[in-house]
Amino acid sequence: MEKRNAFYAQSGGVTAVINATAWGGMETARKNKDKIGKGYAGRTGILGALTEDLIDTSRESARAIAALKHTPSGAFGPCRYKLKSIDENRAQYERLMEVFQAHDIGYFFYNGGGDSQDTSNKVSQLSRKMGYPIQCIGIPKTVDNDLPVTDNCPGFGSVAKYVAVSIREAAFDVRSMAETSTKVFVMEVMGRHAGWIAAASGLAGENEGDAPHLILFPEIAFDRKRFLARVKQCVKRYGYCVICVSEGARFANGKFLADAGSTDAFGHKQLGGVAPVVADMIKQAHGYKYHWAVADYLQRAARHIASKTDVEQAYAMGKAAVQFALQGKTAILPIIVRTSNKPYRWKIGSTSLARVANREKMMPRSYITRDGFGITQRCRSYLAPLIRGEAYPPYKGGLPDYVQLRNILVPKRLATTYAV
Amino acid sequence: MEKRNAFYAQSGGVTAVINATAWGGMETARKNKDKIGKGYAGRTGILGALTEDLIDTSRESARAIAALKHTPSGAFGPCRYKLKSIDENRAQYERLMEVFQAHDIGYFFYNGGGDSQDTSNKVSQLSRKMGYPIQCIGIPKTVDNDLPVTDNCPGFGSVAKYVAVSIREAAFDVRSMAETSTKVFVMEVMGRHAGWIAAASGLAGENEGDAPHLILFPEIAFDRKRFLARVKQCVKRYGYCVICVSEGARFANGKFLADAGSTDAFGHKQLGGVAPVVADMIKQAHGYKYHWAVADYLQRAARHIASKTDVEQAYAMGKAAVQFALQGKTAILPIIVRTSNKPYRWKIGSTSLARVANREKMMPRSYITRDGFGITQRCRSYLAPLIRGEAYPPYKGGLPDYVQLRNILVPKRLATTYAV
Repeated sequence: MEKRNAFYAQSGGVTAVINATAWGGMETARKNKDKIGKGYAGRTGILGALTEDLIDTSRESARAIAALKHTPSGAFGPCRYKLKSIDENRAQYERLMEVFQAHDIGYFFYNGGGDSQDTSNKVSQLSRKMGYPIQCIGIPKTVDNDLPVTDNCPGFGSVAKYVAVSIREAAFDVRSMAETSTKVFVMEVMGRHAGWIAAASGLAGENEGDAPHLILFPEIAFDRKRFLARVKQCVKRYGYCVICVSEGARFANGKFLADAGSTDAFGHKQLGGVAPVVADMIKQAHGYKYHWAVADYLQRAARHIASKTDVEQAYAMGKAAVQFALQGKTAILPIIVRTSNKPYRWKIGSTSLARVANREKMMPRSYITRDGFGITQRCRSYLAPLIRGEAYPPYKGGLPDYVQLRNILVPKRLATTYAV
Repeated sequence: MEKRNAFYAQSGGVTAVINATAWGGMETARKNKDKIGKGYAGRTGILGALTEDLIDTSRESARAIAALKHTPSGAFGPCRYKLKSIDENRAQYERLMEVFQAHDIGYFFYNGGGDSQDTSNKVSQLSRKMGYPIQCIGIPKTVDNDLPVTDNCPGFGSVAKYVAVSIREAAFDVRSMAETSTKVFVMEVMGRHAGWIAAASGLAGENEGDAPHLILFPEIAFDRKRFLARVKQCVKRYGYCVICVSEGARFANGKFLADAGSTDAFGHKQLGGVAPVVADMIKQAHGYKYHWAVADYLQRAARHIASKTDVEQAYAMGKAAVQFALQGKTAILPIIVRTSNKPYRWKIGSTSLARVANREKMMPRSYITRDGFGITQRCRSYLAPLIRGEAYPPYKGGLPDYVQLRNILVPKRLATTYAV
């Protein structure tokens, strides 16, 4: 097997554990120096491959690379950018080949969600359609957990844990104060299309009456009247009501609840955020004192409360991707296969890039209670193992000791530039 | 010394560590059974003393009581309620005496902030003005850190740690994505009057260019033009801009920024939240893509990321309060006295209730940088020790194992009721 260099890029929104995946891949590549030469990372994802901005990961200290394991965000700067098809933009692929050839890149690793795997799938066609020899391996990543085929997706377990822990804590707060203060608490979580993250909040409640009392999923059309009746019932019964709402919650006509907000004095569509909209709706109907929270990036960056299961799986995906490449495979990505629920067991499988590209996995209806406001036992069994275990980062002076890489670029070899 | 019963109540907004204070007090009382008989807690704070709803803490298991150490919120249900003066409402104090007498309560412990210590100060006057023998000890608590005399306040260190950790994590996220995505991130934190919590976000940044780049304090009048210029400069220089804004940030005329939001179609004042207002202001002026977060209760309930220093001090305050009572003291509260910055050392002192009641401690101007947008080295030296150390709660199935007490009430002895 001829020794060639590797290119790795991060794509799409970051997670608490995508760098653990990078670490798993780099560690494995470094153990196979006879087959994989230099490890390059794309500066700002795939854009780095087009503009020939390649980060030389060998210039980082061993300590810095190891610290990737516990550092959230995307260490190499991911991007949101989707390649067109070869037929639509042949020049782009010619440029990719030019850069890859100039740096003798024979392995392409692309770490991202469904949109991103569309890009890696297209890059994999370089071999077949354009004759450039490259092995192309996708690596799953998304907080949304909406990638098909794989049982779950690295990045999700940690955001799920953050959301479940946070709503449990806030619910303790509200419950203790409800008699003379706030009665309704609304927490907004991510998930524009799929309700997996909102569902994870349901893990916080274990007994009758526990929060969250109501979950609003993007998969279930919002029914204002039924919702408000349930909030009232809940406050009457338990003294308080905690609601977790997905940013993607929508009315039957498909319109996002978040867009139901007001416009400002200049006629600008205002602010965004579905939590304040829901809280205000309750206030108008019932007059309850409310509070609301929007965790936004805090949830997907919360490495301090990452799931150990998630960190391990993220690492394993990076490692498996490189192993697949060493086995001569291409156009596939490693996935997580659940082999047992109790005790939770999983193994690494694989699927083709084409099968995951551009496909979203919604919550099955059987995971949502009949009334549409909670999760079923089946959902709970699925989610519970994913948040298990703590994997605390090291601390220095009371703060997590995260690493910022130096990200030194490889000298350019091409005289040409490329405008993205 | 005659053996009498003790009454303990939690007051005002809860914290991640107020139950650790309760634990410290109860543990110490239980070790002194020759002097302190039953330990009663007010159901819903001081209201429980008026309505004779007294929780018998001896009915809880030893395991449950020990779990208070790591359980956020107020285990006995605090309340927001301020007693009038004896001259204004003598009947209320007569009722208190009636309940205390009926249950042989000779010790009164009141765990709360400045408003609450006004109440404990008034109760302490029962002895002097009305001849009922009671020792009244306050115990400091507030996430806002705005209690005077004490160097810092239990509850603050943990929210400070949460805020510093969260903004560091979110900043890593934004920085890594800024080139092709979000450029501005705004996080709103608590602190209606004092900027201590907002200041704590400043600990996240250690080197030039680190986030947070701008902090908006209630103590500094907001200057829209200067602020927007700084945001632009920051994005140009670092590629992104992270802002921490206090909920109490206000214009020079005293108007809250949060109130600058819009009204909805029905003319209702909308939603609240200063983060979206600031984010939108930036969007209108510069067009940058933004995200914002409002942590709300998540920050003060976040026991999962509590400061070890804070937990220890909260426990020590509860213990000291009971020790003071055993020493025959009254009308005082234990405080934290800093004896050294490097290494950080502190000891327990005391002050009179009258000195802390109704007074708020603002950030000294010397703690805020000259430009008004950051913290000085002096502030950093003050804050840094308070977030030090981790004190993780135990976990079960991936979630913190917090306790809900049974809160069994003592049988009433009075035939009379009292309408609050």
